[in-house]
Amino acid sequence: MTTDAPEGTVATEQITREELQLATRNHGMPLEAMRYDVTPVGLHYLLVHYDIPVVDGEAWRLEIDGAVARPTTWSLDDLRAREVVTRPVTMECAGNGRARLTPRALSQPWLLEAVGTGAWTGTPLWPLLDDAGLSSDVVDIVFTGMDAGVEGGAEQHYQRSLTPDQARDEGALLVYELNGAPLPPQHGFPLRLLVPGWYGMTSVKWLSRITAATRPFAGYQQAQAYRFRNQPGDDGEPVTRMRVRSLMVPPGIPDFFSRARYLRPGPVTLVGRTWSGHGTVTEVQVSVDGGSTWVDADVDEAPAPYAWQAWRLDWDAPAGTHELLTRATDSTGATQPLDHEWNLGGYAVNSVHRVGVTVTDHPPDP
Amino acid sequence: MTTDAPEGTVATEQITREELQLATRNHGMPLEAMRYDVTPVGLHYLLVHYDIPVVDGEAWRLEIDGAVARPTTWSLDDLRAREVVTRPVTMECAGNGRARLTPRALSQPWLLEAVGTGAWTGTPLWPLLDDAGLSSDVVDIVFTGMDAGVEGGAEQHYQRSLTPDQARDEGALLVYELNGAPLPPQHGFPLRLLVPGWYGMTSVKWLSRITAATRPFAGYQQAQAYRFRNQPGDDGEPVTRMRVRSLMVPPGIPDFFSRARYLRPGPVTLVGRTWSGHGTVTEVQVSVDGGSTWVDADVDEAPAPYAWQAWRLDWDAPAGTHELLTRATDSTGATQPLDHEWNLGGYAVNSVHRVGVTVTDHPPDP
Repeated sequence: MTTDAPEGTVATEQITREELQLATRNHGMPLEAMRYDVTPVGLHYLLVHYDIPVVDGEAWRLEIDGAVARPTTWSLDDLRAREVVTRPVTMECAGNGRARLTPRALSQPWLLEAVGTGAWTGTPLWPLLDDAGLSSDVVDIVFTGMDAGVEGGAEQHYQRSLTPDQARDEGALLVYELNGAPLPPQHGFPLRLLVPGWYGMTSVKWLSRITAATRPFAGYQQAQAYRFRNQPGDDGEPVTRMRVRSLMVPPGIPDFFSRARYLRPGPVTLVGRTWSGHGTVTEVQVSVDGGSTWVDADVDEAPAPYAWQAWRLDWDAPAGTHELLTRATDSTGATQPLDHEWNLGGYAVNSVHRVGVTVTDHPPDP
Repeated sequence: MTTDAPEGTVATEQITREELQLATRNHGMPLEAMRYDVTPVGLHYLLVHYDIPVVDGEAWRLEIDGAVARPTTWSLDDLRAREVVTRPVTMECAGNGRARLTPRALSQPWLLEAVGTGAWTGTPLWPLLDDAGLSSDVVDIVFTGMDAGVEGGAEQHYQRSLTPDQARDEGALLVYELNGAPLPPQHGFPLRLLVPGWYGMTSVKWLSRITAATRPFAGYQQAQAYRFRNQPGDDGEPVTRMRVRSLMVPPGIPDFFSRARYLRPGPVTLVGRTWSGHGTVTEVQVSVDGGSTWVDADVDEAPAPYAWQAWRLDWDAPAGTHELLTRATDSTGATQPLDHEWNLGGYAVNSVHRVGVTVTDHPPDP
């Protein structure tokens, strides 16, 4: 640790033991898995704050309570009997890219891979709340998971909230299936909230209670964590929707340890995925010369709102070493920055993806 | 890096960027998942040397060639039509525990979690080789995966070998299902070798070729990696079967970042799993006082050879801070050591599991 790093951060390139403990439990999506439209279970990124609860799906119930006309209790079968929606949704961890910042917050040390696209099945959230009858003075809907732990010095269940407007307008689902099978334990069995377009912290796993609150929710994950701050003590702005981003499947083959890439000279199709929680991606540009010049890639339409879009670009790779970059722009005009935009918590770091590659007939020689 | 660490190792507690790149791709099994007899897909440990290949199962074929009377080609349907065996098998990465050594080899920085138990379905290996007709002068059977990369300075497909005796006697299977579904891409779709009782490096994923060789196989993963060495240049002994080990589900609840554990005072049942690639586990001892005294835990019989065994011990947890230890002994009399036994590659580090816990009515206060 160095003295020029704010409290809770470190300025070293090296990773601490505590960060490693999180990195061995949680996992990113190996970037080559972007070849799948829907990410196979086990390859989708996973971040679990506390322990994965073991839940008996038969005994489990969802309670809807607080300032509602009709508090209700739901079994999984009750929820399955309601309107069924299946949709592909891309989810990214708000902390993706955190470990690329200097100094960086001490938390899960993501580099690039904290993303995935699931085919989620469930029932819309708003009709359930509408049936329960929210009081007119409700200001926050609080979602409580069954996972419990200590964070920020306080014992808690994982909790996040949405405003009534967000709960109505954001297409939120209560989902019980991933890729056509019951939710795996690690993704929230038997039920999780899913808020398409938002970073993953919003989509509360192991959901057991939805509470209509007439006072603003000030829980740790809402008021302390997941806020854009420049220094400790700032009130900060909440982290909400995913910023525009594109990633490339690293071409060629890797060196096991360094992950350096080797590619044979000649034609290759560079491919990847792109997404934005603020709309659709309208343009992906690729540079094969370290950012000096840019070429437009072909970008597919999104298969559904907030599901990633495939992109591709043919490249005739010449021998030598190259830095490949990919940069996306979304329908609001937002573009990925060339450099990391720093914030204290290391959230929403969406700078361009840079991939070094050595093009040679004889790996590993350049 | 320090000067007292052999080539390819570091003596610092801190983790390098290259190690982090591997830790964000690969993942261990969160220890609370030991509550499941069979590890759900996505929670089983995963180590991929190169990239996960995307394989068309319809076009895929297995070639059996080399010094055989009848070279043969198999489709997945051909293999499914043969004898079907389903069995639970515990698999551990040979490098599990590597990051606990000082100095440690620069590789995947596992702490404790590189294990899992799958319900694997496939067909026995030996009858296939028997049908192909091994020549009497065959000394090694070489298994080649479709995954390719650079390691030890050389481009290669992942390859490992077994002797004909091992291929006949070790209960090896060619498996195409995990937990009742086709192999997930990351676990070797469409086919992998499975050698029960051996560390995971033996169970070649994305298997595409089995070659009967009349000269000893000297590939990188057999002759360079996965050997017990004390210094660079040693010939070393091969890493083969899993050493006896036990792990505990950390009781109570965690602090998100430090993973420190908090537990309420009173009765609790400590639980975990234990296994050995050399037989069955005959005894698990638990200490709740940092190793001063030991108590025998109840140990279940193994549901199948080389499938982990559950253990449990009731404990009346008194307020205060405690170090819990678990130590297993197998049917050969081998016992987990109290301290790490160092080797250059960081293989088979099976020292006792130590879990710190603070017993308090008011987490996080002691």
